[in-house]
Amino acid sequence: MPEGAALIGVDWGTTSLRAFLLDRAGKVIDRRGGAYGIMNVADGDFAGTLGGQIGGWLDAADVPVLMSGMIGSRQGWVEAPYVACPAGLGDLAGRLTRAPYESADVRVIPGVRTAAAMPDVMRGEEMQVIGAIATGAAGLNARLLLPGTHSKWVRVEAGRIADFATYMTGEIFAACRDHTILGRLMTEGADPQPEAFRRGVEDGAASGGPGSLLHRLFAVRSAGLFGALQAAELPDYLSGLLIGAELADATSEDADRSGLAIAIIASDLLGERYRVAAEELGMAATLLDPDCVVAGHLAIARSAGLLG
Amino acid sequence: MPEGAALIGVDWGTTSLRAFLLDRAGKVIDRRGGAYGIMNVADGDFAGTLGGQIGGWLDAADVPVLMSGMIGSRQGWVEAPYVACPAGLGDLAGRLTRAPYESADVRVIPGVRTAAAMPDVMRGEEMQVIGAIATGAAGLNARLLLPGTHSKWVRVEAGRIADFATYMTGEIFAACRDHTILGRLMTEGADPQPEAFRRGVEDGAASGGPGSLLHRLFAVRSAGLFGALQAAELPDYLSGLLIGAELADATSEDADRSGLAIAIIASDLLGERYRVAAEELGMAATLLDPDCVVAGHLAIARSAGLLG
Repeated sequence: MPEGAALIGVDWGTTSLRAFLLDRAGKVIDRRGGAYGIMNVADGDFAGTLGGQIGGWLDAADVPVLMSGMIGSRQGWVEAPYVACPAGLGDLAGRLTRAPYESADVRVIPGVRTAAAMPDVMRGEEMQVIGAIATGAAGLNARLLLPGTHSKWVRVEAGRIADFATYMTGEIFAACRDHTILGRLMTEGADPQPEAFRRGVEDGAASGGPGSLLHRLFAVRSAGLFGALQAAELPDYLSGLLIGAELADATSEDADRSGLAIAIIASDLLGERYRVAAEELGMAATLLDPDCVVAGHLAIARSAGLLG
Repeated sequence: MPEGAALIGVDWGTTSLRAFLLDRAGKVIDRRGGAYGIMNVADGDFAGTLGGQIGGWLDAADVPVLMSGMIGSRQGWVEAPYVACPAGLGDLAGRLTRAPYESADVRVIPGVRTAAAMPDVMRGEEMQVIGAIATGAAGLNARLLLPGTHSKWVRVEAGRIADFATYMTGEIFAACRDHTILGRLMTEGADPQPEAFRRGVEDGAASGGPGSLLHRLFAVRSAGLFGALQAAELPDYLSGLLIGAELADATSEDADRSGLAIAIIASDLLGERYRVAAEELGMAATLLDPDCVVAGHLAIARSAGLLG
């Protein structure tokens, strides 16, 4: 155990757990984790799972633990009720929920919900947003995009999460490729096809009603049947079609999409895919560090007075 | 074998085969079939599969055989190239393709493609349309809807298929329910929830871009999380959401949707579902006999001079 340990941050989602041992400045001293997401925890033994990852750290240093993500959902360890937008650092730090863990002070950071009557929700992504704001990577007024299985578009105003919207883009892509007729014509593991991707983005962003997506998806099959697209191009065309539709809809209230600046928090590959799509539609996109969740945990700990 | 056998019609799709023995007037003398769709035919033995179903009929009567559906696709027995819209009875009857079957005259009816550069396609549904026109069930100028895994909207003008569009509604519903997070909150096998269905139709038909569907799908989860919809209501709400989006898009070019008359060719349950949705959106919908494929085969046989 190196000296200076001050906080353990745990990003505990549906499929994986990532734990970070931090010093007072937020430097990562050590990290642990793996496929210990809440869906993979047997018999609800969250305490045992957590202990298996960070027990060694706690034996050596009595530091507080902050957790974010689906661990605070109804299906998780202890439910941390959503905080309504607008939600900033202080709003979240003031609503931590204690988890029943004997050998350390373990608290769960709440998720965020929109103010709408039928609200949109996030759990975990809000820490990346708070972290990006805390480090200055994102401005106090910004448009952030966190793509993935459930893509999040976040509007930051005066340093708080003012509103956001979720798109099921990644999950619909996977479901279409793996469980519909669209996958049958596709070549698996083909090289990236940037031209087909860009063509998909343009077609996906074209005007039309919500139902037109159901029609355009079938057109992926026709394009394959008639040779308008090769089998190796179909996966990237489908990906572009869905991402283009997402980008167009998420920016549909902007008077002028061209020149709109968005900041993307994602892994390199996925972030680059969205950056190319955004630029294809005339937007300016920058990629932020996907590990800013660490900065989020540190900021919460400071705001909650957990660092002593 | 009853007397008067004049034609065997075979509706041979991806998952099932249905064969009808008809007299000269189109009366069904006998029927066979089962889960012998082209995906289930081992080693490409289409001739053996067909013989197993209709061999007995052919032993007793030397009648021609007409087949429609995916059996004429590239993945089927013999490819029958698509006929481009506008396509009527004579256009299809003039483009039959012989199948290599020794003991009978077996011909495949072509599918239909739209005239667009990246065309939409159908195989099998066109026989239901032709049959509905031939019997007078559908007018010579009509809007037909054939819902299902791949829902078809067909515009009939002067008795021919002038244009059509496919929506992946049924397949996306199944993929979302069975292979995305949306299914996790749902109760299986619940009683029908007509109010949730109608609410879904309204939400699905609301204005928005193509990408808004990706957002509205995630809202199904939020509605379940926050109790706006009960677990038992979620499947019908999701179904309504997709069907409402389909109906709104398929009629988006109509100046006035209210009062628009559409004819639905489907099984009772699915047809009734679409009828309720259409009426919720102000349209007038009538249900036609889903077995009009028989009338289609008869009309093709007559037009092609196969009945002697």
